[in-house]
Parts: sequence; C-alpha cells; structure tokens
Amino acid sequence: MAHIQLPTEDPGIIGLLRYRPETAGPLTDLANVLLRSDSSLSRGERELIAAHVSGLNECNFCAGSHGAFAAAQLEGGWDVVDAVDADLSTAPVSAKMRGLLAIAASVQAGGKSVTSAQVEAARAAGATDVEIHDTVLIAAAFCMYNRYVDGLGTWAPPDREMYTQMAGAIVEHGYSAALQDSEPPA
Amino acid sequence: MAHIQLPTEDPGIIGLLRYRPETAGPLTDLANVLLRSDSSLSRGERELIAAHVSGLNECNFCAGSHGAFAAAQLEGGWDVVDAVDADLSTAPVSAKMRGLLAIAASVQAGGKSVTSAQVEAARAAGATDVEIHDTVLIAAAFCMYNRYVDGLGTWAPPDREMYTQMAGAIVEHGYSAALQDSEPPA
Repeated sequence: MAHIQLPTEDPGIIGLLRYRPETAGPLTDLANVLLRSDSSLSRGERELIAAHVSGLNECNFCAGSHGAFAAAQLEGGWDVVDAVDADLSTAPVSAKMRGLLAIAASVQAGGKSVTSAQVEAARAAGATDVEIHDTVLIAAAFCMYNRYVDGLGTWAPPDREMYTQMAGAIVEHGYSAALQDSEPPA
Repeated sequence: MAHIQLPTEDPGIIGLLRYRPETAGPLTDLANVLLRSDSSLSRGERELIAAHVSGLNECNFCAGSHGAFAAAQLEGGWDVVDAVDADLSTAPVSAKMRGLLAIAASVQAGGKSVTSAQVEAARAAGATDVEIHDTVLIAAAFCMYNRYVDGLGTWAPPDREMYTQMAGAIVEHGYSAALQDSEPPA
C-alpha cells in the first residue's frame, strides 16, 4: 500500500501523476523531451538507458515499464534489455551504446563516479557531446523517477504482460498517454 | 573541466541549462513548482530539504546554492542548514520538519529505504499527505539535479560568497532568473 492516499489504484508513477497535476506537468514534459524528442539516439536506445538505470535502482515498476518500451522499439526486444542488465560487456549493443550505458551506470552510483576515461571511451566509439549530455541526464532523471515511485511505496505489477500492454499507448502517443483513461485496443 | 564543451564558464547547472534549452525548460519548471509554488511548507523549508539531500550526495554546487537559498529564507540562516547537516536529531527545526528531513534522507539512500514508521512519525508530527509527497519528490529531484551537475563534471565555486550573491536573484525572481545575464545589484 502506498505511503499516502492516492486517488486511484493505478500502479507506479501513474497514481502519483494523477495525485499531483502541478508536478505531473514538468515530470511528463521531461520524459517526453529526453526519451521521445528528435535525437541521434533512437527512442529504443534511450529507453534502454532508462530501463538499465531503473534495474540498477531495483525499481520494479520503472524497470518493467521502460524495459517494455525499449523492447517494443529495439530489434531484439526483451533479449537486448535482459542482456544489458546481465552483463553490459557482452550485450548485443553498439560500441557507442556500450560506452553510454557504462556512463549511465556510473551516474546511478553517483555523479562523481563518471570518469573522464569513460567519457573519452564513449567519444572514441562515436558518441557526441549531446549524446553524452542526454545519457547523463536520462540516467539522473531515472534516479529521480525511481525514488519517487518507490519512496512513496507504490505497487508494481509482478509480470511483464501488463507493461507490454502499456507499451502500445506510450510508444504511439508519448508519456501524456499514461494519464489517459484507455481501454485496451479492440 | 566539464566532460562536454559548454557555451559559457557558468558553474554547476547554469552552464548545462544554457547548453540544452530543450531540457532546461522542464528542469526549471520542476524546480519552480517544487520549491516556490504555493505550499504549506515555506520556501525556506523546501530549500532546506533540497540543500540537505545535496549535501548527502556531496554535490558542492547544489549544496552551496540551495543552502544559500534556504539560509536567505529561514530564520537562523546558515546555522540551521549547517545544524541539519551535522545532526538532524538536534537541529533547531520543528518536529514536522525533522520527520520530513528524515524521509528525505532515506529517499537519498534509495526509494525503498523509506519506511512506514518514518511516514507515520512525520504524520504524527503534523505532516500532511501532500507535504510527504512533496518531500519525497524534492529529495528524488535533487538526486537527479546533483547527478546531472556532477556527472557532467561541472565546476563549483569553493566558498559561500558567490552562492549568497546568487540567492538574491533566485529568491526574488525564481529559477528562471538563473539564466538571466545579471549584473550584481548596484
């Protein structure tokens, strides 16, 4: 049971966004800009960074949902997400993504954990300054979203089916779709 | 030196906000809503939560700046900020703020660290659900801002004087003032 009285039974961040529309606005805007706006990193790649950080933070709702959003937009689907979480060094991702995911993992541990050597390695593998910036901010933002969701004791669906269902609307319409009352597609 | 090429020599988050206006918008909006909009927690109390979490994350820029913003808006000034950082159990704050700051410190350690007992203690000392919600989200948000600032290797002024100068504009005009080219007051 959540630590505060929420208006609905929605899991994870959804009930929190409904509870406090004043903060839901900038939180949703930030997710849309970071994960969905025009970028040289694909939407699937950016969701993979979000899912990996959420896994490191052991946030079941965010790891499940962003894992599903990554899986829906990456060739290889859940196998890629699971491989990154299991062993980044052997996961089937580009050298650039391996470098960026290593930076993201350091951000999760703490901002000062990111090293110049990690940044140079990502750059040598083709990462641009904007991609490095966005990777750090996505990782940092999920250190916020994860703590928000778990710090207020929200519940998380235990298996992947519900996250995969959510993925359809989010992939098509973006994060504001999380607040629509939606029926499953006919 | 920052890990990426920034457009200005501005310290901490300021150079990052100038670098990427697309993300600066929601990041600034979030800070304004959490720390400055109408609330039963005073602006000084909310800045104190931000400063305490930033200190726990050892983020010198955010601890210095939000410490200064708290000090400028709290009776007792820097002494209160320093006392909270030194020993929350004896710091000169209300019982409600002691409970909320304890929750914030747990959020900094990780979302799952917040206990029902902490939430009940804060509530018994007078905290409302919205205050508990906002405390968790302020603490979570500073786990983002702190990682953003340090994960990209920005610099931080070493002493309190520059933060105290910044406080004047922020306290009067809000977080969008951080991006104004301002002269020191005549």
